[in-house]
Amino acid sequence: MRTTQDTFHLAVPALDLDEAFAFYVTGLGCKLARRYGDRITLDFFGDQVVCHLSEKIDQEPELYPRHFGVTFHDREDWERLLRLARLRTLRFFAEPFHRFEGTAEEHRSFVLADPSNNLLEFKYYDDPRMMY
Amino acid sequence: MRTTQDTFHLAVPALDLDEAFAFYVTGLGCKLARRYGDRITLDFFGDQVVCHLSEKIDQEPELYPRHFGVTFHDREDWERLLRLARLRTLRFFAEPFHRFEGTAEEHRSFVLADPSNNLLEFKYYDDPRMMY
Amino acid sequence: MRTTQDTFHLAVPALDLDEAFAFYVTGLGCKLARRYGDRITLDFFGDQVVCHLSEKIDQEPELYPRHFGVTFHDREDWERLLRLARLRTLRFFAEPFHRFEGTAEEHRSFVLADPSNNLLEFKYYDDPRMMY
Amino acid sequence: MRTTQDTFHLAVPALDLDEAFAFYVTGLGCKLARRYGDRITLDFFGDQVVCHLSEKIDQEPELYPRHFGVTFHDREDWERLLRLARLRTLRFFAEPFHRFEGTAEEHRSFVLADPSNNLLEFKYYDDPRMMY
Amino acid sequence: MRTTQDTFHLAVPALDLDEAFAFYVTGLGCKLARRYGDRITLDFFGDQVVCHLSEKIDQEPELYPRHFGVTFHDREDWERLLRLARLRTLRFFAEPFHRFEGTAEEHRSFVLADPSNNLLEFKYYDDPRMMY
Amino acid sequence: MRTTQDTFHLAVPALDLDEAFAFYVTGLGCKLARRYGDRITLDFFGDQVVCHLSEKIDQEPELYPRHFGVTFHDREDWERLLRLARLRTLRFFAEPFHRFEGTAEEHRSFVLADPSNNLLEFKYYDDPRMMY
Amino acid sequence: MRTTQDTFHLAVPALDLDEAFAFYVTGLGCKLARRYGDRITLDFFGDQVVCHLSEKIDQEPELYPRHFGVTFHDREDWERLLRLARLRTLRFFAEPFHRFEGTAEEHRSFVLADPSNNLLEFKYYDDPRMMY
Amino acid sequence: MRTTQDTFHLAVPALDLDEAFAFYVTGLGCKLARRYGDRITLDFFGDQVVCHLSEKIDQEPELYPRHFGVTFHDREDWERLLRLARLRTLRFFAEPFHRFEGTAEEHRSFVLADPSNNLLEFKYYDDPRMMY
Repeated sequence: MRTTQDTFHLAVPALDLDEAFAFYVTGLGCKLARRYGDRITLDFFGDQVVCHLSEKIDQEPELYPRHFGVTFHDREDWERLLRLARLRTLRFFAEPFHRFEGTAEEHRSFVLADPSNNLLEFKYYDDPRMMY
Repeated sequence: MRTTQDTFHLAVPALDLDEAFAFYVTGLGCKLARRYGDRITLDFFGDQVVCHLSEKIDQEPELYPRHFGVTFHDREDWERLLRLARLRTLRFFAEPFHRFEGTAEEHRSFVLADPSNNLLEFKYYDDPRMMY
Repeated sequence: MRTTQDTFHLAVPALDLDEAFAFYVTGLGCKLARRYGDRITLDFFGDQVVCHLSEKIDQEPELYPRHFGVTFHDREDWERLLRLARLRTLRFFAEPFHRFEGTAEEHRSFVLADPSNNLLEFKYYDDPRMMY
Repeated sequence: MRTTQDTFHLAVPALDLDEAFAFYVTGLGCKLARRYGDRITLDFFGDQVVCHLSEKIDQEPELYPRHFGVTFHDREDWERLLRLARLRTLRFFAEPFHRFEGTAEEHRSFVLADPSNNLLEFKYYDDPRMMY
Repeated sequence: MRTTQDTFHLAVPALDLDEAFAFYVTGLGCKLARRYGDRITLDFFGDQVVCHLSEKIDQEPELYPRHFGVTFHDREDWERLLRLARLRTLRFFAEPFHRFEGTAEEHRSFVLADPSNNLLEFKYYDDPRMMY
Repeated sequence: MRTTQDTFHLAVPALDLDEAFAFYVTGLGCKLARRYGDRITLDFFGDQVVCHLSEKIDQEPELYPRHFGVTFHDREDWERLLRLARLRTLRFFAEPFHRFEGTAEEHRSFVLADPSNNLLEFKYYDDPRMMY
Repeated sequence: MRTTQDTFHLAVPALDLDEAFAFYVTGLGCKLARRYGDRITLDFFGDQVVCHLSEKIDQEPELYPRHFGVTFHDREDWERLLRLARLRTLRFFAEPFHRFEGTAEEHRSFVLADPSNNLLEFKYYDDPRMMY
Repeated sequence: MRTTQDTFHLAVPALDLDEAFAFYVTGLGCKLARRYGDRITLDFFGDQVVCHLSEKIDQEPELYPRHFGVTFHDREDWERLLRLARLRTLRFFAEPFHRFEGTAEEHRSFVLADPSNNLLEFKYYDDPRMMY
């Protein structure tokens, strides 16, 4: 377990800030920290994501090499987020899948896409030492 | 202060994994968690950054809309990282600057570039409530 | 999880400080921090509630727009408090109910009334990310 | 120091949700957790405040018996919030004052008023054991 | 949950320091912090107990008004200690009993006696809010 | 630093529960958890002290072998308590003194007496490793 | 539970740093902190192990008197590490065994050998108070 | 900062358990957890060191490749331990020295020798990120 006062921050492009708000706050349940004319800043699972108004989005997003998300320590947190994403009909880029079965790196994952095609992967490892 | 068992993770492209290792581990002092043929995974200030072997890098990087980094709660942590970056001659994309003076959002920042042109911003706010 | 040294504080009216003591300390199991002629201060589930001697109470209390309480992270804590309220025959303004079923905001709640008609709501959400 | 997973919650009336947003989020730097047609929910210094659309506001607010706020453990956090309130020209109901000097309960305080006349008191005690 | 850097300390009489060591360290599994000619200091479940060489012991100990011990948050910790006391045949002043059944203060308890007749009570409450 | 959910508890005699309340709550700033006809229970610096109505008090108290108190990690916490004890004119059994100077066990201490002659020692060690 | 900012460190010999890397990082899942010509430094379950290039290894290792490892608080963490060691075919010096059954010190253990014959013991006690 | 329930453990040889006790407990201020005929177990700065009765000690100890110790996060903790080692005239294998000046790895260190020639290094890095 980690006790931290520092915050990871990630800046990503957003074509439209209202859509970004709808996806991250109303949809994903993140908290809005600040709103300016050209960006919104979010408390994203305890770290910070900033959506900058920009046209430089990925037209045809692929999972590699760019995506972000959260690796949960507890499986029930991963399942709750999956349930929330279904209940609120967020856009799935990849349905839940099971990867690397039979190895220490075995994990479960699903991938969402925000309205500007940023990809968000949420994972759970059976062995939490593999989270890094 | 936050106590967390979950990990933010970010995937970015790397043209060369040895160069990525040299920048993040030998340079920036991050810890290498795993190394595979196509990627390295890093404990990046307590969260996870994964460098995926890829040619899709930014040829002409700009700070907006894509970058990532850490916002430090304590100024001395920001200054220690700046000192380390100078001592180890990491590549600066932007020298330290002071922004939004005289407002609550006042902060200090500098920006590094990794060997694949990913931009890393490190910040410190006078008022830690503005970190999000 | 949050680590905090700061305290939320809430001041509410009380017609009679002995009655307030009987409800909050003897009944609800809060701790008395200080007692003065015109108020008592309470450690209310880790935050502070102050009961000020005052005649400005709500004669016909309604749940909206004014009430306060605790949202528990763990269901068993909510159930223990419900059991304590029943064992000690505290006054229920609303019996336990189930709200927003089938949505992410689904939660359980009950509402107590203190002797000065202040309403206290105690909740538990299936998805703790909805606590805010 | 307290480690908590539970959340204090307080519901207060708001004549206008946009004004409430402007005061609490844009002004005071709280995070917006959720927005519905009839209320907004806020992460208020780690606890929850909900602003319910309502006309039942105090026309002539007085500090007693109803107000709420935060007692800070560290003086610099109290001073930072005071600085933010001045920089962003929030409405002061009471300018900073020094109370109970020469006693153990000695503290500093100031009081803000939100657009619906809810009063918010922010305090700092020289002896943190007096926070309750 | 509490995060603390401070230590409760309790001084009690001991007729014989070797016997005290045998009971507290070899028996109860406490850690010896320091040993002087006239006392031993112990890390007693995270707090400090000091056994001072003295003849002023209770010849006919009674549970009231003087005893000390630990109230465990988790039942399994209470049961583990009970098991250890049985395995190591520590002296029971009172066998495990169930008290205040059907009330919020319901708890389980057992009492040990150290070689100098100091009484140690170990408790577990069904509702941890009753620990104080 | 210790994170604990368990509570040390100590039972001591009190000739008069109102006097005990006056000393521990009104004087020393401890919180009253529960009050019964024959005892009061206190949150004493995060642990529990119970004052049992009893005539078995020490008529001529001595510091050894029985006393209890708190060893503070931070000197300013020790000094704040000393200041509070002076401001509220609590009864000193021993004025502040400096002990074991020039050794690792060097510390500062003062001793209060409650109305039933229980002795309370409050200490601060220059080297916090000596707290046990 | 312990909150710590300090790090235990242990230096051990390694005949070959690549082999040490293969065992500790690729095998055991520790993180590489730094690599120099004559040593690698590892984040070993939160503490630090340093492998120094050296020929002074034990040719015929025995468990006593020199070995190191981790005692896990939770049995599932011990079992996950055992599963990882099997999946990645690390070298077992001693297969899992059960020791001191029927005593308070009862525990489970297994022992691995690194490529330079350093022995690593991983344990789990039924009663976590016996971890020391 | 790390929150941990697990314990690093290290076994080292000791020619004589009373001497080991004198060095580690009476000298270094570690806590004795358990004593058996063939070993003592110690709470060594929060982790576990076990001294096993053995004749396999190093006759001519060298700092590399085998030693152990603690890297302190705060300089004052390192200085307090140095002061304690001097006051209690523990055996220094290496007087305090300053190493790698002008680099990020800059640190201060001193080395003690226990009565069985095990070497203990205590360090402090100016940049705590270099502790691993």
